[in-house]
Amino acid sequence: MRAYDIIRKKRDGKILNAEEINYLIQGFTRGEVPDYQMAAWAMAVCCRGMDPVETVNLTRSMVASGETIDLSAIPGIKVDKHSTGGVGDTTTLVLAPLIAAAGGRMAKMSGRGLGHTGGTLDKFEAIPGFQVTLTRDEFTETVQRVGAAVVGQSGNLVPADKQLYALRDVTATVESIPLIASSVMSKKIAAGADAIVLDVKAGQGAFVKDVDQAFALAHILVEIGKQMGRETVALVTSMHQPLGKAIGNALEVMEAVETLRGAGPADLRELCLALGALLLVLSKVVQTEAEGRSRLEQLLGSGAGLTKLQEMVKAQKGNPQALEDWSLLPQAQKVVMVRSPLSGYVQEIKAEEMGFASTLLGAGRETKDSVVDLAVGIVLNKKVGDPVEAGEPLAFLHVNHPGRLEIVQQKVQSAFQLAREPVPVPPLIYGIVGIN
Amino acid sequence: MRAYDIIRKKRDGKILNAEEINYLIQGFTRGEVPDYQMAAWAMAVCCRGMDPVETVNLTRSMVASGETIDLSAIPGIKVDKHSTGGVGDTTTLVLAPLIAAAGGRMAKMSGRGLGHTGGTLDKFEAIPGFQVTLTRDEFTETVQRVGAAVVGQSGNLVPADKQLYALRDVTATVESIPLIASSVMSKKIAAGADAIVLDVKAGQGAFVKDVDQAFALAHILVEIGKQMGRETVALVTSMHQPLGKAIGNALEVMEAVETLRGAGPADLRELCLALGALLLVLSKVVQTEAEGRSRLEQLLGSGAGLTKLQEMVKAQKGNPQALEDWSLLPQAQKVVMVRSPLSGYVQEIKAEEMGFASTLLGAGRETKDSVVDLAVGIVLNKKVGDPVEAGEPLAFLHVNHPGRLEIVQQKVQSAFQLAREPVPVPPLIYGIVGIN
Repeated sequence: MRAYDIIRKKRDGKILNAEEINYLIQGFTRGEVPDYQMAAWAMAVCCRGMDPVETVNLTRSMVASGETIDLSAIPGIKVDKHSTGGVGDTTTLVLAPLIAAAGGRMAKMSGRGLGHTGGTLDKFEAIPGFQVTLTRDEFTETVQRVGAAVVGQSGNLVPADKQLYALRDVTATVESIPLIASSVMSKKIAAGADAIVLDVKAGQGAFVKDVDQAFALAHILVEIGKQMGRETVALVTSMHQPLGKAIGNALEVMEAVETLRGAGPADLRELCLALGALLLVLSKVVQTEAEGRSRLEQLLGSGAGLTKLQEMVKAQKGNPQALEDWSLLPQAQKVVMVRSPLSGYVQEIKAEEMGFASTLLGAGRETKDSVVDLAVGIVLNKKVGDPVEAGEPLAFLHVNHPGRLEIVQQKVQSAFQLAREPVPVPPLIYGIVGIN
Repeated sequence: MRAYDIIRKKRDGKILNAEEINYLIQGFTRGEVPDYQMAAWAMAVCCRGMDPVETVNLTRSMVASGETIDLSAIPGIKVDKHSTGGVGDTTTLVLAPLIAAAGGRMAKMSGRGLGHTGGTLDKFEAIPGFQVTLTRDEFTETVQRVGAAVVGQSGNLVPADKQLYALRDVTATVESIPLIASSVMSKKIAAGADAIVLDVKAGQGAFVKDVDQAFALAHILVEIGKQMGRETVALVTSMHQPLGKAIGNALEVMEAVETLRGAGPADLRELCLALGALLLVLSKVVQTEAEGRSRLEQLLGSGAGLTKLQEMVKAQKGNPQALEDWSLLPQAQKVVMVRSPLSGYVQEIKAEEMGFASTLLGAGRETKDSVVDLAVGIVLNKKVGDPVEAGEPLAFLHVNHPGRLEIVQQKVQSAFQLAREPVPVPPLIYGIVGIN
């Protein structure tokens, strides 16, 4: 077998078999297939696509490239939740404690923010003392005792994805449904959960801008999960504006706590209920989504989810007091208003622009080596559909270093698209894939 | 400007402007754009194509990546002839002396054989003493005095093509019309000829198998030539069987000499007349193709072309006696017959297979470092359309090392496709592009 022939076959739009895909992936991981051949192949996949069987085989091959986590020591069904990446997406901070409080088991490996999207690990680290590095035994023990734990990736999971993603990132081959799908699912499968709920974002702030494309991605993600023996369900949800109101690490912690108190922004609460109901169904804690939803509403009403978050924070060596006393969280030196230049109705809030604006303030990473400022970020004062008067605040910037402030103000202002006439509030959830 | 954005633009099927193409080509030549980015870009070009303006800009940029030859010291119009690569293609050995004898000027830089196709330099080197390395001054002086010279590429001509071709060769991105066209034309233009006649091969033994594709290639080659101020005409010709009867270096020298004596295989003679007539028109030696053709027929009849070849050989330090006394040419130790297993009519002679068979005998290069055996090769005894009796020889193998003989015999036998019924002789020349 030769890499050349495999690249050529894909270039000509033909279907690769499992052996060919595996030859390429393992060869690349071992450094035997050079970058330039892999880049040509990735571009051929971008242009010619892959069918579901190829995509499943690719995922299987990527999983096989490294270690996998065995969660079988934890009794019951372990669930995982994954978002394809958005702006202001605080759902894991709400869902992990909620699912645990409802009797589920969430053993979650999360990532850090990069580019315009935030990362769950950075958000948890805004809680003073919180440790995202646990040993395998500590991780297992915490999930078993508390019901949930959130850690960074440990061990050599899916090295093929690390290498391939780094290459795709510099060769304009990120935007390919089969490559995105196999990247997402290989990591989820290697991380060991029995059942997976996926939040596939569509819109300006997501990797996949188009709703139809997002559904296509959702379908193949679910197909991969099922083919590889993991119960998998996907929601396709809107990233036509940031989720919730807070963008930035400590700011999102506060928003998550508010949501666990039964308040919080309507869209964040609604998405947590929808994803959470599915997680409880897959956990077999409840029979139906409706049942799951009402269980979660009770937990939000009683504050049991917040109590569980405090327990999680304590278990991972963080200070649970910080969840009640905001002054213990990182605080920005000043808050700057961004005012609306016009009157009208908010039609769209470009999430990608908002994510970049937040990164410019220091809340995210421009490169992998950037240091994140956990205090800074943006809080939206208006969401899509809201009426705005000229001069009213659109958003508040939480700022530590005023160097780039003017650019950020401009970016945030221009991310708000205003209409003259009232605008209907767009759907938050476009649909569900993978459940009957 | 970033390579990433240029790759992405092409991936999305958009048109690159001159600056973008130049940024990529010069950056790659200088080692600033890495192989993996260039490979991804080349695959995007394979999949999405390039329009004529992009292809011209690419060619211009490749020419600008290195030195160019200035032939202006030689008075008159300097013509060049280029074949896109075939098997048994001995035309340059016939045409260079013929054009010179007719009063034209042919300053030719040629290449060596690789894979299944032969190279003109190797063929000339089968003549004892022949030097393909001349200084610039020797080259100019020889063209001026003799009318023709054939040398290897000297100087740093089109380094972008050398690097890009090496990369395309290992990333399955060779088969792309705009990439083939810019590679061919950048070298022709850098080599300095005023007018160019192209022989675009179509068929099993050519880079481009399909006749329509060959016409598409011919059109863009001619377009590039015209846009870059060189009179350019292309013939689209058949490579559905090897050209002539000889495949192998010394064997092709003998065949060229036979042709210059007014004999030789009909197809080789015919193609030389067609290409030669165009070369004489572009040289402004004659007014019309018909006039050019009759001039060339005279030169073949009188033996003046052969006298000119002897003069060329002498000028490049070869032994002109070898053109009259075959025993002075490299000779294989034995000649082995390949017999037909069946009776019938020759329908096709797979040229690519024949080329590889000849390479297996040692006549070509499997890799760039292979040493060529100038004596060995294959002489066809039957051509397409010929009737064959079972047991009759299809071809004669000229062999020095019998190691791979059995494989070669099999390959040659199976390259001959026989039909039961008489087969019409297919066209040698499909058409002409670029002349009114």
